[in-house]
Amino acid sequence: MDHSTHSTKESGDIPIPMTDSKSSKASSPLMPATTNKTAKQPPVSRLKRGLGVVDFILRICAIVTALAAATAMGTTSQQLPFFTQFFRFKADYDDLPAFTFFVIANATAGAYLVLSLPFSIVCIVRPHIIGARLMLLVFDTIAVPLVTAAASAAAAIVYLAHNGNSNANWVAICRQFDDFCQRVSGAVVASFITSLIFVVLVIVSAAALRRN
Amino acid sequence: MDHSTHSTKESGDIPIPMTDSKSSKASSPLMPATTNKTAKQPPVSRLKRGLGVVDFILRICAIVTALAAATAMGTTSQQLPFFTQFFRFKADYDDLPAFTFFVIANATAGAYLVLSLPFSIVCIVRPHIIGARLMLLVFDTIAVPLVTAAASAAAAIVYLAHNGNSNANWVAICRQFDDFCQRVSGAVVASFITSLIFVVLVIVSAAALRRN
Repeated sequence: MDHSTHSTKESGDIPIPMTDSKSSKASSPLMPATTNKTAKQPPVSRLKRGLGVVDFILRICAIVTALAAATAMGTTSQQLPFFTQFFRFKADYDDLPAFTFFVIANATAGAYLVLSLPFSIVCIVRPHIIGARLMLLVFDTIAVPLVTAAASAAAAIVYLAHNGNSNANWVAICRQFDDFCQRVSGAVVASFITSLIFVVLVIVSAAALRRN
Repeated sequence: MDHSTHSTKESGDIPIPMTDSKSSKASSPLMPATTNKTAKQPPVSRLKRGLGVVDFILRICAIVTALAAATAMGTTSQQLPFFTQFFRFKADYDDLPAFTFFVIANATAGAYLVLSLPFSIVCIVRPHIIGARLMLLVFDTIAVPLVTAAASAAAAIVYLAHNGNSNANWVAICRQFDDFCQRVSGAVVASFITSLIFVVLVIVSAAALRRN
């Protein structure tokens, strides 16, 4: 656009006989377009920068919740001080495959979020680089089902551990392992919050992509 | 851009006989801008229309998988012909809360997809209405965790039903209810496919939003 305005200015300066109504008419539809763009640019880039800052803050919140979920689940273990009718005396997260998946998925999401921070900063500093923004959107969209699947599978197991299921003859183990169940429930809640933040991140990225 | 500078130089060189060449050369700095716009418009809108068609086809696929998952889970029931050591003789989807949530979530996703079809058609017919596109993206992003959570919770329970868990003293019920487990597993797979299609839909919408 700048090139074309330069060229029209030059062409307006040089040829004397041809600057009749035609050239003035012809240049008029071009000029409003360029001035409009330069006038609109600042608010759009300010909006984009604001969305970038929101994105960055949400990412830091998501790092905290994802890593908190992973460590809370990963470090949970309860040894029972007494003998019960169960064969087990100790509950660990890796006794249940859903909980192992939970730790892996949340740690992966946390690592991805840490790695995505520089790109988020790029989107704040240079709001017009839409490649970085689109890349973040794609990876965030992939992270949503990852974190949600982990949280949901763990929630299903925790629900079962709390309430049991008489139809399937599965007993509630939380009566014995109450500390374990409480920490695991907390981790599941943290993971669902991470998932929610990812959804908001995708929508923020889409809103930032909209105005280009 | 090279064209315009060349043409102005030429118009500076050739002074007087401009009456016929004026129409072609004086308008040349302008024409690239306008012809560029009219020339670029079709590919962008063709690309958008193509993405809209992809979106529409994916939505129809997702309707099929979501409703198949919901009906397969909802209609599954197995009555055992013999007496076992379990107290139950019949397995229904509503015996387990995770399966009930599965049916509700998949039916909801299917209903949303049917309602979203008109908006998808609007995006094909009028590719420049970005409001509809952004709305679809937001709702698709919300549908991703809904369907994934349903599929994942059901998968955790189905895994438990298949393999049991000796640590928690939960027995595998699929030895008795094998037909029930097989149909439920199929429904879970269909739901995961729905979730994958939703992720692709979000990325397609983001790609369509990018060029505005």
